[in-house]
Amino acid sequence: MVRSEGETPTLDQVARLAGVSKATASRAVNGGARVSPQAQAAVDDAVRRLGFIPNAAARSLVTRRTGSVGLIVPESDERIFSDPFFARMLHVVTRSVKAHDLQLVLLLTQPGKEEQRLMRYLRGRCVDGVVVASHHRGDRLAESLADLGLPTVFIGSPWTSTDRVSIVESDGIGAGRQAARLLIDRGCRAIGTIAGPADMHAGHDRLEGWRQELSEAGLAVDAVVHGDFTEAGGARACGVLLDEFPGIDGIFAASDLMAAGAVRELAARGRRVPEDVALVGYDDLGTAEQTDPPLTTFRNPIGAMATEAIRLLAQWIDEGPGEPPRRIVFAPELVRRASA
Amino acid sequence: MVRSEGETPTLDQVARLAGVSKATASRAVNGGARVSPQAQAAVDDAVRRLGFIPNAAARSLVTRRTGSVGLIVPESDERIFSDPFFARMLHVVTRSVKAHDLQLVLLLTQPGKEEQRLMRYLRGRCVDGVVVASHHRGDRLAESLADLGLPTVFIGSPWTSTDRVSIVESDGIGAGRQAARLLIDRGCRAIGTIAGPADMHAGHDRLEGWRQELSEAGLAVDAVVHGDFTEAGGARACGVLLDEFPGIDGIFAASDLMAAGAVRELAARGRRVPEDVALVGYDDLGTAEQTDPPLTTFRNPIGAMATEAIRLLAQWIDEGPGEPPRRIVFAPELVRRASA
Repeated sequence: MVRSEGETPTLDQVARLAGVSKATASRAVNGGARVSPQAQAAVDDAVRRLGFIPNAAARSLVTRRTGSVGLIVPESDERIFSDPFFARMLHVVTRSVKAHDLQLVLLLTQPGKEEQRLMRYLRGRCVDGVVVASHHRGDRLAESLADLGLPTVFIGSPWTSTDRVSIVESDGIGAGRQAARLLIDRGCRAIGTIAGPADMHAGHDRLEGWRQELSEAGLAVDAVVHGDFTEAGGARACGVLLDEFPGIDGIFAASDLMAAGAVRELAARGRRVPEDVALVGYDDLGTAEQTDPPLTTFRNPIGAMATEAIRLLAQWIDEGPGEPPRRIVFAPELVRRASA
Repeated sequence: MVRSEGETPTLDQVARLAGVSKATASRAVNGGARVSPQAQAAVDDAVRRLGFIPNAAARSLVTRRTGSVGLIVPESDERIFSDPFFARMLHVVTRSVKAHDLQLVLLLTQPGKEEQRLMRYLRGRCVDGVVVASHHRGDRLAESLADLGLPTVFIGSPWTSTDRVSIVESDGIGAGRQAARLLIDRGCRAIGTIAGPADMHAGHDRLEGWRQELSEAGLAVDAVVHGDFTEAGGARACGVLLDEFPGIDGIFAASDLMAAGAVRELAARGRRVPEDVALVGYDDLGTAEQTDPPLTTFRNPIGAMATEAIRLLAQWIDEGPGEPPRRIVFAPELVRRASA
């Protein structure tokens, strides 16, 4: 199929060759709604034989839509498969986009060259909007997406451009405060935390809440070690905490995977949970019930956040921005089990 | 940004507003190669303010490219997160597309309405080509993609249109034969199989090879139960096999997850592996080393298949089909451990 730009075939030619009306041909090349399978096959065949280009832009000039939205996850594929957070997130997002009759396009990326490639792809307007989950301070996604003017909803706040994108998040400061309060109330006085990565709001906010509550109670806030949201990282961080603060009697871990690592490390050192060290986690995505003892934790409102993010995005795509971008905060729910 | 179709802004206007040459503006809206960050930002801003539509089709008219390829996985998100096959597949595909400077777009779908939505999306030429992994007999992907004329490579053979798409697969018949031969050679005479889903070549071919080898050896081939490639399904299938064929002394399971379920079921019934029942699995993606005893199995050549699939796809996109679609077969390698 070689031809010069001057010979661009028309929709009329496609309709004629397919033996259908121009209206049918138009619907067939623009998504296929209300087109019989026979007519669709005939049009597809004519499109191929003529070299007609029924592409996103041609459709966009009419509807401005591709019918698809992107879920951008700025993480490695290893982490996505090892942390139940992403399985749950993808599950809810998949269900939600179906309800809006949108095609979901999953886009993994990492800062640097890959992010530039992603922005090049998005600049082509191949999706009508995006949801970004698991944003890090080091990437430039928030500015780039806001500059692009593409409808964008962040799950978890970005660090910049917060007035130019919509945000759906959980109240990490509230959870950190509640965790510290729970440990104080059960009598702990040397309370540490295994915080999340400092370049993510999920890490920063839970730590900040923990710090605020302890400070107001007049307790020390120096027992802080950052983990990487993995079980191995949690075990390592717990070891460092115990080495540097041997008298520690309570720990808030910013994720259940890290708390599971802490349970393992505490057992290896002969410290009982909760008798010697009380432990509070965060997420409640399955791991918390499987540790020994099971974890007192917070239920990460992923379902509510993901559903709301897709709803906001679909609305933005349908109606335009209209008003300033939205910011919606969900409160994580405390789940009491045996570890604290 | 409301305007009628008649006022479509031009690239000239974009260049003028951005204060750059038309060539720079063109490169900026067509991907951003060789454009300074400052110029790119200025053009992005002009594009947004004018409502210029720098979309896939506009670029396609010049380069016919979006710079992206799709990985279509016709499975539920639950299965993708529970089977290490997909984690490994995505890992290698991600690495391979990077090497070709392509953006990977992951597309999950299931037969029926979702498949129609996916085809609608693909009809918009939002990706330059696709790789399909984990194809089932019930979906219409092979015909639909071939009809669309989109460069398409299947990992694992489809059931139809095999002469119109490229195929990269593993030799399942050879593996089934080798598994049966190994069990015969160690003295097993009542050999069963926990086959994969009959609607997938991965299920069909491994069963077929097992059947051929046993038939040629004059042994019975009636001890067949189909599983669903999950651990729970493997345990259930093993239970059925043991109930119906109590004298069974060898089993070939078409995946290690199903073999792990069989190990559990055999232990629950007091049958020793390999002394009472020898067991051969398939995949070698981590599970095989963790069972007790560890599994004799075949190494699924996912890495080689995925790398080759992306190479073939990139070549097809760059050079056009040129010759008939390719079919490339990799042999899975036997890995001896304790279970047989």
